[in-house]
Amino acid sequence: MGLRMTDPQRALVVGVDYGTLSGRAVIVRVHDGAELAAGVHEYPHAVMDHVLTAGPASVTGVPVPLAPEWALQVPADYVDVLKIAVPAAIAQAVAEHGIDASDIIGIATDFTACTMVPTTTDGTPLCELDGFGDRPHAYVKLWKHHAAQGQADRINELAHSRGEKWISRYGGLISSEWEFAKGLQILEEDREVYDRIDHWVEAADWIVWQLGGAYVRNACTAGYKGIYQDGEYPSADFLGALNPDFASFVEDKVDHEIGQLGAVAGHLTAEAAAWTGLPEGIAVAVGNVDAHVTAPAANAVEPGQMTAIMGTSTCHVMNGEALHEVPGMCGVVDGGIVEGLWGYEAGQSGVGDIFGWFVNSSVPPAYVDAAAAAGKSVHQHLTDLASAQQIGEHGLVALDWHSGNRSVLVDHELSGIVVGQTLATKPEDTYRALLEATAFGTRTIVEAFNASGVPVTELVVAGGLLKNKLLMQIYADVTRLSLSTIASDQGPALGSAIHAAVAAGAYADVREAAKVMGKRTVAAYTPIEENAVRYDALFAEYTLLHDYFGRGANEVMHRLKGIRREVKTGTQA
Amino acid sequence: MGLRMTDPQRALVVGVDYGTLSGRAVIVRVHDGAELAAGVHEYPHAVMDHVLTAGPASVTGVPVPLAPEWALQVPADYVDVLKIAVPAAIAQAVAEHGIDASDIIGIATDFTACTMVPTTTDGTPLCELDGFGDRPHAYVKLWKHHAAQGQADRINELAHSRGEKWISRYGGLISSEWEFAKGLQILEEDREVYDRIDHWVEAADWIVWQLGGAYVRNACTAGYKGIYQDGEYPSADFLGALNPDFASFVEDKVDHEIGQLGAVAGHLTAEAAAWTGLPEGIAVAVGNVDAHVTAPAANAVEPGQMTAIMGTSTCHVMNGEALHEVPGMCGVVDGGIVEGLWGYEAGQSGVGDIFGWFVNSSVPPAYVDAAAAAGKSVHQHLTDLASAQQIGEHGLVALDWHSGNRSVLVDHELSGIVVGQTLATKPEDTYRALLEATAFGTRTIVEAFNASGVPVTELVVAGGLLKNKLLMQIYADVTRLSLSTIASDQGPALGSAIHAAVAAGAYADVREAAKVMGKRTVAAYTPIEENAVRYDALFAEYTLLHDYFGRGANEVMHRLKGIRREVKTGTQA
Repeated sequence: MGLRMTDPQRALVVGVDYGTLSGRAVIVRVHDGAELAAGVHEYPHAVMDHVLTAGPASVTGVPVPLAPEWALQVPADYVDVLKIAVPAAIAQAVAEHGIDASDIIGIATDFTACTMVPTTTDGTPLCELDGFGDRPHAYVKLWKHHAAQGQADRINELAHSRGEKWISRYGGLISSEWEFAKGLQILEEDREVYDRIDHWVEAADWIVWQLGGAYVRNACTAGYKGIYQDGEYPSADFLGALNPDFASFVEDKVDHEIGQLGAVAGHLTAEAAAWTGLPEGIAVAVGNVDAHVTAPAANAVEPGQMTAIMGTSTCHVMNGEALHEVPGMCGVVDGGIVEGLWGYEAGQSGVGDIFGWFVNSSVPPAYVDAAAAAGKSVHQHLTDLASAQQIGEHGLVALDWHSGNRSVLVDHELSGIVVGQTLATKPEDTYRALLEATAFGTRTIVEAFNASGVPVTELVVAGGLLKNKLLMQIYADVTRLSLSTIASDQGPALGSAIHAAVAAGAYADVREAAKVMGKRTVAAYTPIEENAVRYDALFAEYTLLHDYFGRGANEVMHRLKGIRREVKTGTQA
Repeated sequence: MGLRMTDPQRALVVGVDYGTLSGRAVIVRVHDGAELAAGVHEYPHAVMDHVLTAGPASVTGVPVPLAPEWALQVPADYVDVLKIAVPAAIAQAVAEHGIDASDIIGIATDFTACTMVPTTTDGTPLCELDGFGDRPHAYVKLWKHHAAQGQADRINELAHSRGEKWISRYGGLISSEWEFAKGLQILEEDREVYDRIDHWVEAADWIVWQLGGAYVRNACTAGYKGIYQDGEYPSADFLGALNPDFASFVEDKVDHEIGQLGAVAGHLTAEAAAWTGLPEGIAVAVGNVDAHVTAPAANAVEPGQMTAIMGTSTCHVMNGEALHEVPGMCGVVDGGIVEGLWGYEAGQSGVGDIFGWFVNSSVPPAYVDAAAAAGKSVHQHLTDLASAQQIGEHGLVALDWHSGNRSVLVDHELSGIVVGQTLATKPEDTYRALLEATAFGTRTIVEAFNASGVPVTELVVAGGLLKNKLLMQIYADVTRLSLSTIASDQGPALGSAIHAAVAAGAYADVREAAKVMGKRTVAAYTPIEENAVRYDALFAEYTLLHDYFGRGANEVMHRLKGIRREVKTGTQA
């Protein structure tokens, strides 16, 4: 089955990208990566973060309330994407390109992570069992479920106090978003659900299980989110010290066969073939993560090529030949991006989010009206005004910590700052300073990689923000790196399609497939020396403030958040 | 003449307040300070800061351009106030209170300062001489003429290098706004005008000269702006070191009889009586300054009573029994507020200006619309929203340096900062943080006075900002001082009227007159202990940032302004 059954010129693959609110399927031609058609489906239940709207509540009309920081999803919504978005994409490809669905030789998926599904031995989500539909812990915990922060704090404290060697692979911080914190939360809050869990499954793997009939843990999430390092998970001894009943967590619910990225996880079942309209038995690739599949989609998987997926936040992924410890990285995983290389991940907690907050909260009516009159977004209006400025003309420097700082400080209690405002400061001045601050944040990360033996030679940008040309030129000037941009609007789905092609045997591996099917505009922006010199001076100011506020000299941001919490919860310091 | 000629119960005085854009006259009853009527007149030429619109230009229609930072006025506009605003006030008092203008026993004026008029020996402004009407340097240099900064810098540098003892009386900084910097600018830029100056006259004294026929330098501006200390001006040796031709500046153009505040400078001339409709020969008081006359208007001239005139900026004036050096004060002058006490002055460069900047530049349409729908100003809308918050709830701390810092750092190159913004930060959060920052600035000044042997026991607020109740309570809580508010809407004009009454002999001195005619609401706001404790914590954060950014640990604000200037002027660092 697979490639051998099809004319190589006609062979097609399907990539499906599971985002936070919807799933998107694309049909891609194997021999050149051409994207022929796409289909999308929004999850009916979206994100449940105030009340449970599924299960008995959907019948009784009495929703189950959820505590703050919760974020749940419904597994059936993911299956609906297979039933709706994939057939829609096929239909479009038939209509517009005359394709034959029997030429489709493989399917692969990528998912948000860490998004966790509690299941029985056969993969049935617990929320679908009788008597569990009204129990929040029986549902999918979406990546942005942050209610396990207390558990995460204990994991980190214990790991550092015991000197667990794996903690350094994660920049010193295990996130509340990840498998272990979320699992421990269930144990401690709903023991009955916990005891019923046979597999604690990444949604990335669960959807592959539905497609191919087999449960395989992908090396990417196992490494980045599941603390799987050097073939081991955290020890039973460690877990038992967190909670005696947690000692067997790995053995009972986590440990499972690992599949390498691009490998075959299974073959399309008859049921899934019926859902999708795809040929039964085609290759189903091992699961993967949206950020990580984007690197091959941009043909940027060689060591030194850092792919920055820039949206509300930025995720940086890059391969390296060897293992190094980079301060403040999110993780380093053997085969985490492509098999045979060490995959490094870093992140900026707030990027587009900060620009959006500024536009919504801090721009006066005259600007909003002027943008509307010119038929532009406020973002574009501010960008156009800021583009007319020379570097440093606004007299400002900002820290991009409005959502805290992941890399390189790993401190979510940090907050934003703008220095230098005067009575002459205009909205476009501050807007530009915020754009620049995020570029300085990226340079800080790049310098940390350079200094740790994992040099960055090319910055490859994917994600929605690459449309902003001013922002891109600022990034090139600030980092003094040649900046490439992904040449696809469907980066993650294309990346999944590449993995499908590899799983189907059309290419030897992801690196080879990426060279053909991945697309980027090389050196779309290059540093302008005069600008880079100017930015060196401003980056020096950024670094001085970064280290002063971020490395303990003045913990004012922590104290202000502490005061805010005390006041809001009514407790006195 | 004066009081003896009139029934004490009927005696009246006139106070005239010369502001930046208009002059305002009030008629005040001597025995109780009742304000009976007011008249106002806007200067026809307002402030000339781009082009010269007076002189030949007003005939030819070809305006003379002015360089940046210039700000000129026309002396005849001041005389128009006497011709229009004073008769209007008298007419209203006649109509509404049936007064008899012959019961008016004195007139006094206060003025912006340092505002300088170059005149001939008889007081004719040079701009009124043939051939001088198109020369900018022949006009009045308004207080906010900042084009003599280069000269001021040289004065300061030389004073410190020579260890001139007077420099410490001014917090270490002579302003570009003051007499010597402005005079040196004329010498170096228009020698012909400079040579023609017989008297370099404060407008405060020039208007008194027009009223009473005699030129007397008032002790207030001579001390605060004219560097007159311990009976001496800067030496010819010092001045000659600035510029050899400047050595005789004091002797040739400045030195003149000094008059104490509240003393008689002259008696109303027949010409001025005709302008005003006032009785010829009544007492004309020695000139004075708007901020300084406000202290008696609030009956706040005793040592320990700090009067804060809060508007776009804040001026603090307070009397002390003895001479002390307070770091960062604007000046200390023997008899500078009332005769017999040392008058201290301090200042905050930006207060209402900062709130206004924020409202104009940083508040989104939804807020502006909501304010309009509720029939409120945006200031009031933000204040109402901020009032609902608990202290510290916004998680922010700001530095109020958007216009630089006068007291206590004396550094106009500083700039604003807001620390702690997150994606949840709302406009009312930042607005409240800015209100609080100015209160922290005031506390910093109060603490400097307390630590220097000039303790502050009561804060007396005058000026437009006293209408904001939230702001007033914040000031009381932050300073832990009982806060009184002036009980007049015409503070400076009332203060001048008090000086008129003293000059006319109705009271022995200004302190006695202020007790009867001055008005304040004592303890209008008192500190709430719980709030004060909360603010102690935030003030500690303010102070940490204040000292870090303001005392040399991180000169980022200076460097950012330097970069901005380089870029704007096209010079490379």
